[in-house]
Amino acid sequence: MNDVAEGGRRNRGGGRDARRALREGAKVEAAPYISRKIPYLELCSEEGLVTIENNADTILQEIGIEFRDDAEVLGIWKDAGADVDGERVRFPKGMLRELLKTAPREFTQYARNPARNVQIGGGNTVFAPVYGPPFIRNLDEGRRYGTIDDFRNFVKLAYMSPYIHHSGGTVCEPVDLPVNKRHFDMVYSHMRYSDKPFMGSVTAGERAQDTVDMCKVLFGEDFVDQNTVCISLINANSPMTFDDTMLAALKVYARNNQACIVTPFIISGAMGPVSPAGTLAQALAEAMAGTALTQLIRPGAPVVAGLFSSSMSMQSGAPTFGTPEPTIVVSTASQLMRRLGIPFRSGGSLCTSKVPDAQAAYESAQSIWPTVMCGVNFVLHGAGWLEGGLSSSYEKFIMDADQLGMMQKLSQGIDLSDEGQAMDAVREVGPGNHYLGCAHTRRNFENGFYSSKVADYNSFEQWESEGALDAAQRANKIYKEMLASYEAPAIDPGVDEALCEFIEKRKVSFPDSNV
Amino acid sequence: MNDVAEGGRRNRGGGRDARRALREGAKVEAAPYISRKIPYLELCSEEGLVTIENNADTILQEIGIEFRDDAEVLGIWKDAGADVDGERVRFPKGMLRELLKTAPREFTQYARNPARNVQIGGGNTVFAPVYGPPFIRNLDEGRRYGTIDDFRNFVKLAYMSPYIHHSGGTVCEPVDLPVNKRHFDMVYSHMRYSDKPFMGSVTAGERAQDTVDMCKVLFGEDFVDQNTVCISLINANSPMTFDDTMLAALKVYARNNQACIVTPFIISGAMGPVSPAGTLAQALAEAMAGTALTQLIRPGAPVVAGLFSSSMSMQSGAPTFGTPEPTIVVSTASQLMRRLGIPFRSGGSLCTSKVPDAQAAYESAQSIWPTVMCGVNFVLHGAGWLEGGLSSSYEKFIMDADQLGMMQKLSQGIDLSDEGQAMDAVREVGPGNHYLGCAHTRRNFENGFYSSKVADYNSFEQWESEGALDAAQRANKIYKEMLASYEAPAIDPGVDEALCEFIEKRKVSFPDSNV
Repeated sequence: MNDVAEGGRRNRGGGRDARRALREGAKVEAAPYISRKIPYLELCSEEGLVTIENNADTILQEIGIEFRDDAEVLGIWKDAGADVDGERVRFPKGMLRELLKTAPREFTQYARNPARNVQIGGGNTVFAPVYGPPFIRNLDEGRRYGTIDDFRNFVKLAYMSPYIHHSGGTVCEPVDLPVNKRHFDMVYSHMRYSDKPFMGSVTAGERAQDTVDMCKVLFGEDFVDQNTVCISLINANSPMTFDDTMLAALKVYARNNQACIVTPFIISGAMGPVSPAGTLAQALAEAMAGTALTQLIRPGAPVVAGLFSSSMSMQSGAPTFGTPEPTIVVSTASQLMRRLGIPFRSGGSLCTSKVPDAQAAYESAQSIWPTVMCGVNFVLHGAGWLEGGLSSSYEKFIMDADQLGMMQKLSQGIDLSDEGQAMDAVREVGPGNHYLGCAHTRRNFENGFYSSKVADYNSFEQWESEGALDAAQRANKIYKEMLASYEAPAIDPGVDEALCEFIEKRKVSFPDSNV
Repeated sequence: MNDVAEGGRRNRGGGRDARRALREGAKVEAAPYISRKIPYLELCSEEGLVTIENNADTILQEIGIEFRDDAEVLGIWKDAGADVDGERVRFPKGMLRELLKTAPREFTQYARNPARNVQIGGGNTVFAPVYGPPFIRNLDEGRRYGTIDDFRNFVKLAYMSPYIHHSGGTVCEPVDLPVNKRHFDMVYSHMRYSDKPFMGSVTAGERAQDTVDMCKVLFGEDFVDQNTVCISLINANSPMTFDDTMLAALKVYARNNQACIVTPFIISGAMGPVSPAGTLAQALAEAMAGTALTQLIRPGAPVVAGLFSSSMSMQSGAPTFGTPEPTIVVSTASQLMRRLGIPFRSGGSLCTSKVPDAQAAYESAQSIWPTVMCGVNFVLHGAGWLEGGLSSSYEKFIMDADQLGMMQKLSQGIDLSDEGQAMDAVREVGPGNHYLGCAHTRRNFENGFYSSKVADYNSFEQWESEGALDAAQRANKIYKEMLASYEAPAIDPGVDEALCEFIEKRKVSFPDSNV
């Protein structure tokens, strides 16, 4: 055992080496995204999928989708041959599937560091952080409104986390900045404090344009027109409605060849039926309409079909996560989108719990498991989501990121090489002995098992003598150590200056507002 | 929303109705075991399975298995045509698979209440509680040694939990009773305080015989000889060894037509190679040898192949759970055992954490997910396991049991009936409206979603005003309410008297001992 224990000691949690490892977190060897080597978990039969597809077609033909307050979009649909009645648009059977033939099955989102480029679609999975919470929570302060400092912190933590592949978007809402200008600081934070791919602003058409213009400064104008450097979240106002804000942002991004994630946002029982099959038919109809629209605006523009799905507490009306129904929805939706032939976004480390406790962890694990096993391509809310998305939690971010590492390793399946088969070890050890010091163990123990940074594996006595900390308390220490050792990735000073100039000029060109 | 909210109020957590619901917990409508309606998650390719099977055959032929200190068993192997060299037994290729042809692919374990009978094998999954911990933990007392009162409490909680199908065995070790007599009180507790199926004693051959004799009192002598009323855990001393204690118990149970779960217990890196494929080949070899032995003792005796698998912390030597490697092992082993054609036991709600915190929940969810999705037939440690199996946790028992309910619902897959498709709801509601009050929602909201007893779905403000409790604190209240409202299932007074007489007579026939 001595060899192993001694080797192990070099890997311990504390001390100088550990601090260096934390500082160099972003350099931990991990693939920039998951290319799965395991089969998909598919819960729905072929017959069931056809039933749901037929129901979606019926919804599109008979009921239709509303595109609100956007004459341009209604005109686009009319010209394309849809039946436009006021804001209601109905689609002849097969029309949307035909339009979607130009959408790529898989595309690259480029990062400013090419080693961080991600492949979205196919057998790939990309993890991005939590998106959208107005509050943050940590053990020290409890729950309070988020600020731009928190925003930068989450960008930094995502940058340093080897199994978070994407910098995300609204990692928390920076409530201390004016609503109509905070997008500049948000997009800049992703560009400056990380070198991973990121998301753009969708809260107004001109803010989407600002995002694209900033991308042009960072990547160059021609590059942006020909390549995807930005991906943005376009939520449907389920049921069966898209509003003008989202449509305005969608048009900007699609025209500029930047990716949209068109996402029905459905709390079943409120924005969709209280049944998975009903929710799925509606979601498929909404996603097909929204994604096909991008292809009318710019054929070939990258687009992702999304589905944010939760069940609902019939007592409180709150969205509930990690329950069987959203799992069935996510799994079946994955199958439907693979058949449709476009990348799929869903899932995450979702929970309803207010604190990073056992409820949060059960719910999040029950969410991320189907997310990965069913083959979701783009995973928003991969880390840090708390309280139904009302809070970004520092501690949960750390705990979730650790779980994402486990999912990434699991997605690589079983090692059947000679070294993986380990028959030399079985022969060397034999009945009644142990493997602790055998040659195979000595060659493989450092990488044999996924090594959690958060879990405590010490003896009861040692754990108690170290303060009997729970997982959230350990995560609290880890995130502070990470932020303390953060070093920004290098950026061309000329580009940084140009970005800052662009922002400054735009910011002074119109007054602050909180709308 | 009013209709739903009012209906919902009838289902609330507090009050008289809730207390009655708790008291009648065992009457909650839930199937007595899972008959899955979803496909298996299978992570290993056909080619990979064949490789592992060939390696297992090589281990059996070349290295062999040791059967220690049991001349009778060695004689049985010799007579059957194995190569016996001292205690080492080597098996000609194909011999064990041939012997296993008499083992049932699926069998019924009878309970004294026929409504609780479980079907073990095939597409079925049976959940049993934690097995083996010397300690218990609760929020009030922390960690202390278990007693027979704790033992009875866990039997009662399992009895009242609708998604725990089996009363289990050593739900905690009753350390306050003498080692050589505590099995009487343990088996009696299962028989008297529950009416679900249970497990027998394995700590000595005569204690196994006592279990069988008590079963004969409860079920009748002939019934026991012809039917399985007891299932017991026979661990291999991995690597590649069975000891005399386990062999003695195995012989008693197999001879009496009672089920054995022959389980390689492998912490990879210590009792098996630090690789899933290596661990699997060894485990398959061990399981085949142990299960085939039961068929030599009594052809047709029910037998389950088990695998208790964990990875190992190379820092502390502790078993680690909920990591990718045990998931790959459990999934692949499920595939191997289906090919072998005998029921499979593995998994559970396993964790290393010392407390029912986020680490415990992440680990347990990461364990129970593959357990169910990969089709494990008998799930020991389904609820209450803490601290690598050193503690039975009251609070975690409640939280895990809630998760088991979610897994049971998930295993039933998607509802594709007309009511499940909900097209009437989509037509009634239409774009931009909500589903809260529509006819389909009103018909389905009570059973539409799995309803957690532990999760808090209230608003942040309400949760805070109710004391800002975390999941473990809520579970603490729930288990106390359950125990306070427990009512024992009826038993024939004559049978109960006969059982108590048998125990009393046996107890006074030999002196107490702690060996």
